Amino acid sequence: MAIDFKKYIASIKDFPNEGIIFRDITPILQNGTAYRAATHELAEFAKSKGAEVIVGPEARGFIVGCPVANELGIGFVPARKPHKLPRAVKKASYDLEYGSNSLEMHIDAIKPGQKVVICDDLMATAGTLHATVKLVKELGGEVVGAAFYVELVDLKGVEKFSDIDIYSLVKYHGE
Amino acid sequence: MAIDFKKYIASIKDFPNEGIIFRDITPILQNGTAYRAATHELAEFAKSKGAEVIVGPEARGFIVGCPVANELGIGFVPARKPHKLPRAVKKASYDLEYGSNSLEMHIDAIKPGQKVVICDDLMATAGTLHATVKLVKELGGEVVGAAFYVELVDLKGVEKFSDIDIYSLVKYHGE
Repeated sequence: MAIDFKKYIASIKDFPNEGIIFRDITPILQNGTAYRAATHELAEFAKSKGAEVIVGPEARGFIVGCPVANELGIGFVPARKPHKLPRAVKKASYDLEYGSNSLEMHIDAIKPGQKVVICDDLMATAGTLHATVKLVKELGGEVVGAAFYVELVDLKGVEKFSDIDIYSLVKYHGE
Repeated sequence: MAIDFKKYIASIKDFPNEGIIFRDITPILQNGTAYRAATHELAEFAKSKGAEVIVGPEARGFIVGCPVANELGIGFVPARKPHKLPRAVKKASYDLEYGSNSLEMHIDAIKPGQKVVICDDLMATAGTLHATVKLVKELGGEVVGAAFYVELVDLKGVEKFSDIDIYSLVKYHGE
């Protein structure tokens, strides 16, 4: 059961911009055993934190978070790019490792006091996580953890969240 | 276990454009029991078709298809919007109920002869399905079925695919 997940992560230099090493998780997904094992690891973490709902930012956060919610039998709430959600929303903007963007959540998506674990593929500078945490809090939820497939340690995203437990399947230091 | 999924679908008039009734599946996801039951129904269909891999178009196809792949213990392959996948891709364009777009898949994502079930939230005019089928075939895969949460029957998308078995959790006729 001890899967070396790094074997299922492709590293692509200079994508999408020069100087970036993109960590591509699609080989994990393509392997049914590896994908289910990755889901299970994140689900165990979320369970240990008492998660009542999983939140995932568009789009890779859906790929990571949805099966975690299903394994635990709890709800999934998407944080979506602008103009995708049809009902009343809260919005937060954020900076990416490259570029910037906004996320929206339906205002009735989280019940007050609900314990939330945020799932996404990769923790870099943590701009996406910061915006997602902000939205969850504005909706009255409590962020009890965040779980990733990949953490880029040198970008020190984790250090910005002293009050949230952060889990990652694999960590990269430099290259 | 007989869940009335329509209770968990919100209908929003004139979104994103006038004259469209948007079928919002986020209430299904928000309810852990309903979401898991929906996944199970689609997984049973995919299993009956002998699916070896699930393909889902960005972004709601991830929400629908990823847990189906995990339940069956098979791989998931995303069909993504342009410039998101970092390695060599095939690309197909399509018309939406409103607007148009393109999808891309990694060229090594499907093994030759692999049996594919495509999962997405909604079957309308079937433009997205058409593009996804085209990509899977170009990669050498065999599309053995397609599964949706919602089918808009009046738009007659299903009629365009006489050679593919199509399953949907709920159907809407007009309003």
